[in-house]
Amino acid sequence: MKLRLGLPKGSLQEATFQLFKQAGFNISVRSRSYFPAVNDPELEIVLMRAQEIPRYVYEGVLDAGISGLDWIMENEADVVEVADMVYAKNTPNPIRLVIAVADNSDIKSVSDLNGKRVATELVRVTQKYLKENGVEALIEYSYGATEVKVPHLVDAIADITETGSSLKANNLRIIATILESTTKLHANRSSWEDPWKREKLQSLAVLLQGALRARSKVGLKMNVPGAMLETILDVLPAMKQPTISQLVRSDWVAVEVILEEMQVRDLIPALKRAGAQDIIEYPLTKVIP
Amino acid sequence: MKLRLGLPKGSLQEATFQLFKQAGFNISVRSRSYFPAVNDPELEIVLMRAQEIPRYVYEGVLDAGISGLDWIMENEADVVEVADMVYAKNTPNPIRLVIAVADNSDIKSVSDLNGKRVATELVRVTQKYLKENGVEALIEYSYGATEVKVPHLVDAIADITETGSSLKANNLRIIATILESTTKLHANRSSWEDPWKREKLQSLAVLLQGALRARSKVGLKMNVPGAMLETILDVLPAMKQPTISQLVRSDWVAVEVILEEMQVRDLIPALKRAGAQDIIEYPLTKVIP
Amino acid sequence: MKLRLGLPKGSLQEATFQLFKQAGFNISVRSRSYFPAVNDPELEIVLMRAQEIPRYVYEGVLDAGISGLDWIMENEADVVEVADMVYAKNTPNPIRLVIAVADNSDIKSVSDLNGKRVATELVRVTQKYLKENGVEALIEYSYGATEVKVPHLVDAIADITETGSSLKANNLRIIATILESTTKLHANRSSWEDPWKREKLQSLAVLLQGALRARSKVGLKMNVPGAMLETILDVLPAMKQPTISQLVRSDWVAVEVILEEMQVRDLIPALKRAGAQDIIEYPLTKVIP
Amino acid sequence: MKLRLGLPKGSLQEATFQLFKQAGFNISVRSRSYFPAVNDPELEIVLMRAQEIPRYVYEGVLDAGISGLDWIMENEADVVEVADMVYAKNTPNPIRLVIAVADNSDIKSVSDLNGKRVATELVRVTQKYLKENGVEALIEYSYGATEVKVPHLVDAIADITETGSSLKANNLRIIATILESTTKLHANRSSWEDPWKREKLQSLAVLLQGALRARSKVGLKMNVPGAMLETILDVLPAMKQPTISQLVRSDWVAVEVILEEMQVRDLIPALKRAGAQDIIEYPLTKVIP
Amino acid sequence: MKLRLGLPKGSLQEATFQLFKQAGFNISVRSRSYFPAVNDPELEIVLMRAQEIPRYVYEGVLDAGISGLDWIMENEADVVEVADMVYAKNTPNPIRLVIAVADNSDIKSVSDLNGKRVATELVRVTQKYLKENGVEALIEYSYGATEVKVPHLVDAIADITETGSSLKANNLRIIATILESTTKLHANRSSWEDPWKREKLQSLAVLLQGALRARSKVGLKMNVPGAMLETILDVLPAMKQPTISQLVRSDWVAVEVILEEMQVRDLIPALKRAGAQDIIEYPLTKVIP
Amino acid sequence: MKLRLGLPKGSLQEATFQLFKQAGFNISVRSRSYFPAVNDPELEIVLMRAQEIPRYVYEGVLDAGISGLDWIMENEADVVEVADMVYAKNTPNPIRLVIAVADNSDIKSVSDLNGKRVATELVRVTQKYLKENGVEALIEYSYGATEVKVPHLVDAIADITETGSSLKANNLRIIATILESTTKLHANRSSWEDPWKREKLQSLAVLLQGALRARSKVGLKMNVPGAMLETILDVLPAMKQPTISQLVRSDWVAVEVILEEMQVRDLIPALKRAGAQDIIEYPLTKVIP
Repeated sequence: MKLRLGLPKGSLQEATFQLFKQAGFNISVRSRSYFPAVNDPELEIVLMRAQEIPRYVYEGVLDAGISGLDWIMENEADVVEVADMVYAKNTPNPIRLVIAVADNSDIKSVSDLNGKRVATELVRVTQKYLKENGVEALIEYSYGATEVKVPHLVDAIADITETGSSLKANNLRIIATILESTTKLHANRSSWEDPWKREKLQSLAVLLQGALRARSKVGLKMNVPGAMLETILDVLPAMKQPTISQLVRSDWVAVEVILEEMQVRDLIPALKRAGAQDIIEYPLTKVIP
Repeated sequence: MKLRLGLPKGSLQEATFQLFKQAGFNISVRSRSYFPAVNDPELEIVLMRAQEIPRYVYEGVLDAGISGLDWIMENEADVVEVADMVYAKNTPNPIRLVIAVADNSDIKSVSDLNGKRVATELVRVTQKYLKENGVEALIEYSYGATEVKVPHLVDAIADITETGSSLKANNLRIIATILESTTKLHANRSSWEDPWKREKLQSLAVLLQGALRARSKVGLKMNVPGAMLETILDVLPAMKQPTISQLVRSDWVAVEVILEEMQVRDLIPALKRAGAQDIIEYPLTKVIP
Repeated sequence: MKLRLGLPKGSLQEATFQLFKQAGFNISVRSRSYFPAVNDPELEIVLMRAQEIPRYVYEGVLDAGISGLDWIMENEADVVEVADMVYAKNTPNPIRLVIAVADNSDIKSVSDLNGKRVATELVRVTQKYLKENGVEALIEYSYGATEVKVPHLVDAIADITETGSSLKANNLRIIATILESTTKLHANRSSWEDPWKREKLQSLAVLLQGALRARSKVGLKMNVPGAMLETILDVLPAMKQPTISQLVRSDWVAVEVILEEMQVRDLIPALKRAGAQDIIEYPLTKVIP
Repeated sequence: MKLRLGLPKGSLQEATFQLFKQAGFNISVRSRSYFPAVNDPELEIVLMRAQEIPRYVYEGVLDAGISGLDWIMENEADVVEVADMVYAKNTPNPIRLVIAVADNSDIKSVSDLNGKRVATELVRVTQKYLKENGVEALIEYSYGATEVKVPHLVDAIADITETGSSLKANNLRIIATILESTTKLHANRSSWEDPWKREKLQSLAVLLQGALRARSKVGLKMNVPGAMLETILDVLPAMKQPTISQLVRSDWVAVEVILEEMQVRDLIPALKRAGAQDIIEYPLTKVIP
Repeated sequence: MKLRLGLPKGSLQEATFQLFKQAGFNISVRSRSYFPAVNDPELEIVLMRAQEIPRYVYEGVLDAGISGLDWIMENEADVVEVADMVYAKNTPNPIRLVIAVADNSDIKSVSDLNGKRVATELVRVTQKYLKENGVEALIEYSYGATEVKVPHLVDAIADITETGSSLKANNLRIIATILESTTKLHANRSSWEDPWKREKLQSLAVLLQGALRARSKVGLKMNVPGAMLETILDVLPAMKQPTISQLVRSDWVAVEVILEEMQVRDLIPALKRAGAQDIIEYPLTKVIP
Repeated sequence: MKLRLGLPKGSLQEATFQLFKQAGFNISVRSRSYFPAVNDPELEIVLMRAQEIPRYVYEGVLDAGISGLDWIMENEADVVEVADMVYAKNTPNPIRLVIAVADNSDIKSVSDLNGKRVATELVRVTQKYLKENGVEALIEYSYGATEVKVPHLVDAIADITETGSSLKANNLRIIATILESTTKLHANRSSWEDPWKREKLQSLAVLLQGALRARSKVGLKMNVPGAMLETILDVLPAMKQPTISQLVRSDWVAVEVILEEMQVRDLIPALKRAGAQDIIEYPLTKVIP
């Protein structure tokens, strides 16, 4: 029995393969093939454009896939969301589908779009949003480079942005956010009813999320004189129970704790001041709470 | 005193240098030089073609070298095998020297090769094999691209293959396996008799194999309520004794174990179900049993 | 409040960014920008040429910067040295500013440089050194490729070298060393008087040096029968107190120690002989003594 | 006054720029810009996806553009065809939009497609064709990699092919040709009515076609004894009147002719045999008959 | 006897080598060498930074060199200008050394620079210019990336620009032009007095300028009925005497003319209308008037 | 009927394809294929290592091939030499197979090689040469990087060199030249007896050599007052009869001549002095005398 899984080809492919490798699955692409090998006989991987994955999951050609919420909605794909996967990105913000116009345009809000031309790669989501806002506009499919079409070719665009910096560089102004989108492991409804496939998908979700969680965390280990243990524990973030072990032939203890990498910046100087010695930080591959 | 060691130049070079780095030896090539620097004053590295290393080890120009069994045999090099080194490859299979013919060829078995032309990079090994099978064939040395020579230039080839996929892509059919080959750390017989060199080689073998072993393994650490330790231990593979330490000021224990990375896929969900908490996985650099 | 920090653009940039990442700071350059983003709201990074950083630190345009002692001196920049940072290099030696002449030149020592022409990228440091040695020479600024100017264009050069191999390849002979230089985290004198900035700089120094220290060290963990603990401890380097924990339900102990990676080469075989089992080595991200 | 011209971005861009350069127009792209500079103040170039150019020409956003007949039809763009432009390609054949199925599929002809799923980048053209053939099929838009979708994701594809070799490599069989397509310089109907724009477009067409024609032709020049001129002229292709000039102070004549490069292969040996001397071949930039 | 010639290394190197190749001199660089081989035994080429060439020419280390007027002036090099060489560039404009400030700066003219800090790679030229304008400013040497230093590090810059687009992209405003600069073949005064060297330099100038001239010109050849020759000649630019030859056995003439490539765009349609046939355009390597 | 032609794969491949393109044959390699397409239905191209081509030509697997004389001899291939092809190289010298030893070796001449070890890629040619010189040496096949094997691995090498600079860089000294080698179009003896194949090969030779000849030549055209024609003709090289045509409506003549590119350097200044005007140089694709 196999689970057929669609993974995004193209710009996300390398990042996805690295995540799967960290989760314990080696995927190796034979040149130009869309059916890469994977070291798990229970998985069958299909590479395709992120835009198409939700459609094929919905239709049952795939059991499950990884794609963005934006494309799940554009395909109007009624699928099961198995897990939300926040890839390490430049910013922790989700990507957004926004409507933007030229900086110096008269269009100030969504209602000004009546009768205007809007280019987008996500025609249906945009159409639905504008309709819900009572706006009639001419929405046309854009094959790419959407940002440069304003103002020469269209009046507005609906485009994906993460930090907004590319829009700014093209002298565009955001007037509305249609949706926020993150990457989803999603499954076909019938596949999800199959107990074997559901358990496989849940295991996969645990491993992928364990890998993602480990990316922002580190292990910290230090030696502490028994007498100063309380002080040290006060310094450590409260929500986390450290692992404490008594050292043989001494009254010192070893303290080990898993922390957000961002916290370490402030903690290490504080721990040193509190008497911790031989502090080491080591990398993690998976973290399962 | 120095140990003179031949390492393969070319496609295996980068992988070999990474393995040595993981084993604790930094090798740095000055541009175009064949005598790279290494941070061990007891080693002298010579880069050369894998094909030639066994010959120079056999003749004593090198004390030891790293090359495949196939080239040791082709050079008819009477050397000491110090260690078998299975590099991380796409597949765990050893590479094989096989005889292949065109898919639609009349040649069905080795005995059909009588009087035929066979191209190969390993002329002597192939000759010896065919002779032992009572076959007289015209064996010619191939300078490369051996796979495309059938059927236009020769009737059959003897070529190295790992997964067979390249042979398949060239519409070739395997009719026999001459030998299976893995990478060997091998030594000159006189060098091996020298106690200092033998100990140096044995240490080197321990470190290289420790590094290779670590590539397929990970460390797993988790916290377990004392009462559930037995259940957890039942889940863990039997052949492996975990390290268990009592946590201070609690009745929990910390369990730490080294596992095959492939096992983790199934174990982590099982451990969670059995009550383990704060499971972390961390990478390893060397594993010495 | 922000600390404005100058980091070197160009050949050292990638290495500096990797070091900061290991220290816990993700720096991401937007294309062609000199003001990269960093995941610490208290830092403002400016990328510039290493040659100019000390000048701008001295003048107070930057609070602090990372550059070599050579450029601090060439800029005659009166700054505070916060930390010495020995990057992982090919050799552990510091880089040197040396005076070199053609192999077959009559110039044998610094005093022979009277009236000669000397090309260098560090005009002031060279001038000061020659003056102190009572030598009058014509020192001219070299825009690059300084090594090839001898003997056709100048009589001698003052140039940076690490291993001397590039000088040797150009048939040059070193006749004097002007200074040895390492990379310095250095600060503006007024910024250093500001308590917030000083504490920020000291924390930064702890994290960067913790990251650098971790590059040459590894963690080693092993299981040891209680009876053989003394033998094992004798094998381990004396200056280092290992962490020893009693294993539950057995008379074995777990021994964990942080070591120089270079020592591991000799220790692992020795530890095995002394009875240690299940030795694993794992990588470290930071080491704070 | 300016002519606004859309040129294809992406895989055809470099070839298009080279053709324009040969025709006498230097186009230089500022990084990431879609409005490249051109050394003709009467032209304004806009780079966009070939798929979108006909739509914007039809709507009058552009005066003219260069794109394939396939995309003109897919956009249902009622435009004026100014010139047919056969780019130098691997083969002289036009590209074709074909319907293909798996080699071993039961589908033998277009009528077998009733009720089947067909993926294509040219949904409307395909739909129209199938309707005209009385076939009802489910046509879905393909974002790319269309060839690998058969048989796992769809039953058939409608895809662009030049030599058919990529289809063959994916084990597909062509069952019908929907249309043949070449690259067209096409214009908006109103722009074409404007005399200045029409003349500008016609000049452009003369220069572009002159450049394309020159790519397959060469100039041939030779000296011939007056007495043998007739023999030489017999050898030369009949449709072509050569330029013959009398040489001063001799009874020789110089013969110059423009030929298809492919003819030269056979003509040069024949001309030599017929007595021509000092034959030279030289390259051409434009040929206007 | 040899002429020692300095050519610019780096960004101009490839363009310079191509120009010399077109002029008839093949220069081939052996890897990393600064003394490339050239197929003229009378030339000795030295590669160096364009900034340094005028200094070494002035001092007589080189007989001649190729560099910009800007660097000749910065080096205060009293040299002979042998030829002005306008490389094919994006624009026919010479490059300029300009003073620029931030768009929103209070500095409006050169006189506002009193007491301000100015960064530049051309310190002496800038200093001289400001002094002549009665301005006292702090001029500091910039090692590169000068454009991004305003406004954070300095108040103004003096920088080289061709189209001004890079300054605009950095939000800078030009307030003055210090000098316009083109590339010069320049010679040492004593070398120029040597008759052999002077003739060699003059020949070199003829060939290099012949090659540069040919880059913007093309050859045009056409057949014309004798009766229409006058009409055709009227169409051709007046300043240029075409080569007209009578064709044998016909009353047609062949007309051949060398033209600016930019003129061809308008001429070809006009010539066709005037009755010219078989118009061909061919490329040129050198044009010597 | 087809001529089967072997062309060298690898370092010479691109140069060979360009030469064939110039000769009028477009060869296009489909990825990884060894049987490229060519726009001549009478040719079938096979790509293979230059070392193997003569063997397969000799055995009749190929009708003809392009390879060096060195490999024809190493294969002891009794073939017909159809044409000598001097590719444009850095130097006009043929490549040589030389014997080289370490600079400071005691070996001074070939006779000193008795009993020594010699590494080479051309074992048979070297063996034959040494035997003819009465020397008994141990000749071993070298898989590459032959130059670095002296003195550590062997006493001498027999290696291919063009300028000797690579040998010099490895501190080697040439003691003998075994043979000089150029590239040969060579044919199988039976194929050569076939009239159709012989004519095809001869045509191919004419076109290839015409293309090679054109690489070092250029066309020169100038206008000359009738009165000065004699002076101009005196300046032009004697061996070459220029084409002279009377200009219509003037007493000027047009002079056209094909010259070595190297001569142009001296001729252009001389022609100008002699009164020639409007000198143009244009490139050639083929020159057939």
